[in-house]
Amino acid sequence: MKETLSDFDNQLAAALDAKTKPVGSLGRMEELAAQIARIQGTLTPRIETCHLTIFAGDHGMAQAGVSAYPQAVTRQMVLNFLSGGAAANVFAKSVGASLQVVDAGVAGEPIEHADLLDRRGASGTQNAIETAAMTPDQLEQALNTGRALGGGIQADVVCFGEMGIGNTSSATLLASKLLSKPIADLTGRGTGLDDDGVARKRALLEQAASRTAVTLDAKTALIEYGGFEIAMMAGAIIGAADARCVVVVDGFIATAAAVCARALEPQSEASCVFAHQSAEAGHRVVLDAMGAVPLLQLDMRLGEGTGALLAFPLITAAAAMLSDMASFESAGVSGPA
Amino acid sequence: MKETLSDFDNQLAAALDAKTKPVGSLGRMEELAAQIARIQGTLTPRIETCHLTIFAGDHGMAQAGVSAYPQAVTRQMVLNFLSGGAAANVFAKSVGASLQVVDAGVAGEPIEHADLLDRRGASGTQNAIETAAMTPDQLEQALNTGRALGGGIQADVVCFGEMGIGNTSSATLLASKLLSKPIADLTGRGTGLDDDGVARKRALLEQAASRTAVTLDAKTALIEYGGFEIAMMAGAIIGAADARCVVVVDGFIATAAAVCARALEPQSEASCVFAHQSAEAGHRVVLDAMGAVPLLQLDMRLGEGTGALLAFPLITAAAAMLSDMASFESAGVSGPA
Repeated sequence: MKETLSDFDNQLAAALDAKTKPVGSLGRMEELAAQIARIQGTLTPRIETCHLTIFAGDHGMAQAGVSAYPQAVTRQMVLNFLSGGAAANVFAKSVGASLQVVDAGVAGEPIEHADLLDRRGASGTQNAIETAAMTPDQLEQALNTGRALGGGIQADVVCFGEMGIGNTSSATLLASKLLSKPIADLTGRGTGLDDDGVARKRALLEQAASRTAVTLDAKTALIEYGGFEIAMMAGAIIGAADARCVVVVDGFIATAAAVCARALEPQSEASCVFAHQSAEAGHRVVLDAMGAVPLLQLDMRLGEGTGALLAFPLITAAAAMLSDMASFESAGVSGPA
Repeated sequence: MKETLSDFDNQLAAALDAKTKPVGSLGRMEELAAQIARIQGTLTPRIETCHLTIFAGDHGMAQAGVSAYPQAVTRQMVLNFLSGGAAANVFAKSVGASLQVVDAGVAGEPIEHADLLDRRGASGTQNAIETAAMTPDQLEQALNTGRALGGGIQADVVCFGEMGIGNTSSATLLASKLLSKPIADLTGRGTGLDDDGVARKRALLEQAASRTAVTLDAKTALIEYGGFEIAMMAGAIIGAADARCVVVVDGFIATAAAVCARALEPQSEASCVFAHQSAEAGHRVVLDAMGAVPLLQLDMRLGEGTGALLAFPLITAAAAMLSDMASFESAGVSGPA
């Protein structure tokens, strides 16, 4: 098996170096092409279709004042997604991606809408500052639902996005417990807290973190601090990776979900393309811990899968480069003198 | 006029801040949307079509050993573009851009091909290490041809690419003379020189630079050190900017052309979107001198317009964001608490 993999990697390197360009001159696009080739198991990968699934869920912590926005915005934004007005809708249309919104656990009554996939575990999580966010059964349900959803997506590239007021707090706690990083290094402005707001958020998250051991396994961390949308995304990453999709990881919260997915299923990591470096403070720390260098640095911090969608055209172009570019030999172009 | 512009900028900022997202959370995409709006003169910009023009030209300096590749590669790559096998072809197809190749001055006999636009000023430049690269008349012809070509492109977004063995040397000399930067800070590996090759290239370029004053105006610099493809691209940037196209500037050589264009026609700068940070050593220096922060950092150093093409989907998405996203008011979404 190891020898076969090495053969494939050698063929891949030779194919890239034979293209009519100075060796290595397409930089990150060559690495990306190689990753896609490995995921699809072919030297002539094809990328045509892209799908975005947005998981929405609410957080009991939001009531404690960890966010600049009221909890009702989660629900309002779900409706905005469903009527096509959010950034994720506009970017999805712009890059030619289909879009599905999943209610993973939005607060309040279920939202009735023909286009919304209802996979609610509960009406939001418990307040994780004081108690476990969800039960073990709720976690298993969220993970299994996510795995089934992720494995069932019919697209070459799968982007996952999230919506949930308070979920940078959940992601901060998850990353801290799984990666043994201090809360202070991971706490950021979220949707736009000022300095006082960040200080308050950090104090609340340190209080929440002090309820449990410094390091937790993924399932315990998700039970204690997770959001339904994050747990479901972690399951979906695993499911889509199993199905040999290229999985595009969005920003801070999605990367926290990818950390959980890796802890639960290490081979999921190989299928993950990290889309962008978010402006959210903790993202760099989490990406470094994953050994990930994202494709884009656009100072974005919106979530919803917006960064993932913008990476899709790069993925398409990288695959096409490997599959369709001429070689020095086929084009009759001379090599270095 | 100043007041009108300020009104427009205020309306633009208000329109961006009213979108259903935390203020500023789309980062560089918001700046990009604002630039496109200013270029098109509307708060609802539209980006649909993209065109790449590749200017090819040869350099007398290539005979002196400034490049890792033989001069014949310029001609061979023109044929590769025409048969669709180069990276620029594959990326253009991938992002949906049309492509035109212009012979601005390739060495040897004219290339006969129905799809090639023949705008040859000469069979390559003179060896600029020893003498002026072109005559004043040849420069005027190249600039005017470029201006007419750039102004005649029917596309919302115009990318310019180049092909010319030895043209990082020409770009280095142009940038040095126009920006008063030392040759040593601008000399890079080009298509792939090793350390000895870079040292030899630098010594040759310092010899070339010593022929003339430390700082030159754009036309004198182009006559002394230009390439026909760079001069024509400078003219094309001016022509496309006059036609209110979004002009996408590719890598090191294209940025040197943009520096020339700015010197000749300062308002051309406002229409330029800088696509990517090239791995070529001098690019950062030239971008800094232009006050430009490019959209992509993918360690690419191929030229041909490849980086510019990869920026096109971001430009499309940015314009769509400004034109099509819902506002907090229209979507019934709450603002910060």
